[in-house]
Amino acid sequence: MTEKVEFPLANCELRSFVGEDARLYLSLEVVEIGSPVGDELVVRVEGAPMNPSDLGSMLGGVSADAFRLTDNGGLVADIPEADFGRFSERVGQSIGVGLEGMGTVVAAGELAQHLVGNVVAMVGGGMYTQYRKINAGDCLALPNGTSPEDGAGAFVNPMTSLSLVETMRRDGHTALVHTAAASNLGQMLVKICKSDGVGLVNVVRSEAQVTLLKGLGAKYVCNSSSPTFDDELVAAIGETGATIAFDAVGGGDLASRILAAMERANTGKTPYSRYGSNVYKQVYFYGGLDTSPIVLRKNYGMAWGAGGWLLFPFLEKIGNEATAALKARVEREIYTTFASEFGHSATIREILCPEKIRVAAARSTGSKFLIKPNL
Amino acid sequence: MTEKVEFPLANCELRSFVGEDARLYLSLEVVEIGSPVGDELVVRVEGAPMNPSDLGSMLGGVSADAFRLTDNGGLVADIPEADFGRFSERVGQSIGVGLEGMGTVVAAGELAQHLVGNVVAMVGGGMYTQYRKINAGDCLALPNGTSPEDGAGAFVNPMTSLSLVETMRRDGHTALVHTAAASNLGQMLVKICKSDGVGLVNVVRSEAQVTLLKGLGAKYVCNSSSPTFDDELVAAIGETGATIAFDAVGGGDLASRILAAMERANTGKTPYSRYGSNVYKQVYFYGGLDTSPIVLRKNYGMAWGAGGWLLFPFLEKIGNEATAALKARVEREIYTTFASEFGHSATIREILCPEKIRVAAARSTGSKFLIKPNL
Repeated sequence: MTEKVEFPLANCELRSFVGEDARLYLSLEVVEIGSPVGDELVVRVEGAPMNPSDLGSMLGGVSADAFRLTDNGGLVADIPEADFGRFSERVGQSIGVGLEGMGTVVAAGELAQHLVGNVVAMVGGGMYTQYRKINAGDCLALPNGTSPEDGAGAFVNPMTSLSLVETMRRDGHTALVHTAAASNLGQMLVKICKSDGVGLVNVVRSEAQVTLLKGLGAKYVCNSSSPTFDDELVAAIGETGATIAFDAVGGGDLASRILAAMERANTGKTPYSRYGSNVYKQVYFYGGLDTSPIVLRKNYGMAWGAGGWLLFPFLEKIGNEATAALKARVEREIYTTFASEFGHSATIREILCPEKIRVAAARSTGSKFLIKPNL
Repeated sequence: MTEKVEFPLANCELRSFVGEDARLYLSLEVVEIGSPVGDELVVRVEGAPMNPSDLGSMLGGVSADAFRLTDNGGLVADIPEADFGRFSERVGQSIGVGLEGMGTVVAAGELAQHLVGNVVAMVGGGMYTQYRKINAGDCLALPNGTSPEDGAGAFVNPMTSLSLVETMRRDGHTALVHTAAASNLGQMLVKICKSDGVGLVNVVRSEAQVTLLKGLGAKYVCNSSSPTFDDELVAAIGETGATIAFDAVGGGDLASRILAAMERANTGKTPYSRYGSNVYKQVYFYGGLDTSPIVLRKNYGMAWGAGGWLLFPFLEKIGNEATAALKARVEREIYTTFASEFGHSATIREILCPEKIRVAAARSTGSKFLIKPNL
């Protein structure tokens, strides 16, 4: 199974580059990898998911429709003038893409020789590459024989979904609301909450997604395109007692409507005050599927908070031991709770295709790509 | 100085009532006060400020322009149909108005006889009244001879301004931004921060207000109506290191611009990430001068939080000992740091005048009313 590699190793990787010409380029570059030392591993990448955050760093928020082929097989898009300002720190820089991946260890430094031949999941960026040099500490052992489909998404979505529940507990809440809940991550959250007995109110945007989540055993699924959405949300929040929400949509007034529903579900339980109930309500934004501004209508009293939520700062805050406990659960439930579903796969050469980028960027249920660099 | 009162005492008070006819009524009512028992005091109210929060509960958010005289000397306003829903909990209820006040103790229960004749500041609502029965624990001793002008505002603004600085410290920040900073409260904050050596960025909306605050010794005053406001804000935040803001405006995109300025002031200090800097930025909304929705433009990375802030839950959280320390400082600095300024005064009968209500509701610098119920 383990190939023999020689160093320096010529390695082909996908890069995203912003030029002073106000264009964003996606292209393949050949970079040499030197021999691993210490606890470094060199992993042949067999699968790397295209998560929403990867689309974000790859496309930089430029519309997928703007990409066209270049003469050398890459893609290019003009950055709209109004947006170019926010790229100031990226101009002239080429960045690797792909936060996580999995593969087989083909070489290792003197401290990690025992890992050669093992299958590992990795996190750390730049995974849309044939070979990735990485510290052993940034890897997670997978059973040998784990397929790219099963192992590629072992970090970001599993650790995020577990961390949302962990955040809920540490902030003193007992049930939660989740938006864009039909996503891969949302499906994992349904399974975690079912298994842990945690109340979960899923917010989706179509009846098909309601059916999908109910099929996984979700009890409360509210369709935001229903005319009775707000009332259904109040009822579900009332039954579960949810006072925290995790919003992957992150734009428009959805978060405001959730806070208002939480307030309505708790109105009358405490004496009237024009400052609203004293039940504390929290929304964390962890994604930005909707790039429009967040609109907060303030019809939910004063006991509320909102803020950004990111996985890595959270893991840093809870520390190594708590993080290891979450990782251990991912390892145990990799084929069940944390099974990923991919609608498509592509090599790093094949993904450089305007039509494929558009499918991936649609981020609709079933449009998720698995990158298989070496296939 | 202390009059002799007999119980039951016929007392005249100002009430705000919402009827099923979708009208808000302001009127005087005569209510009997029984003899005080235990540690209860009966205080002849000599001054009660009309703070923004009092205007909020008195007018219920209805436009001041909507009030007209009734036949019995009160005021009435039609509540717009679109707004009536949010009054559901107030329909049929008459509420007292005036969160805080000061006056002379004219009678007391058996446990508080020693306080008869003393001047006290009080907090607890329903202060726009001739006499107020209140527990001694909700009062703060003032030097005898304290004028209504000096003593009436001894609680809400002084305790709020001190608590904003205390919140800043407890949340781990070292400097702060304050909006609507030319307010009575804002002027106190300027004095506190100057005396404590805390960096303060004042946001105001006119050059006259810039001049006013600079005259009090404020170092950083940014005028939001200036075309270079955002750049000035970045510079002031950069120099002070402010990473927390207290926003009394509470609508529109001002909070978003402050978060963006904090982010710009910290950009480049940590390695580039498309999730922004890792400097945590917080905005608390403690007022709602602008009733329009809050618009968050999300151009400040993911390390941010926002939320409602209220004085009484904060004091409850920090506990009796810490609250007592803040109160002691107010007592010490009542004539200096915490001196209030009133532009107008009126009895509870005189304030029931459409023109006066409009002046008070304008909330412009110098339009603040002191209610003197017994004058």
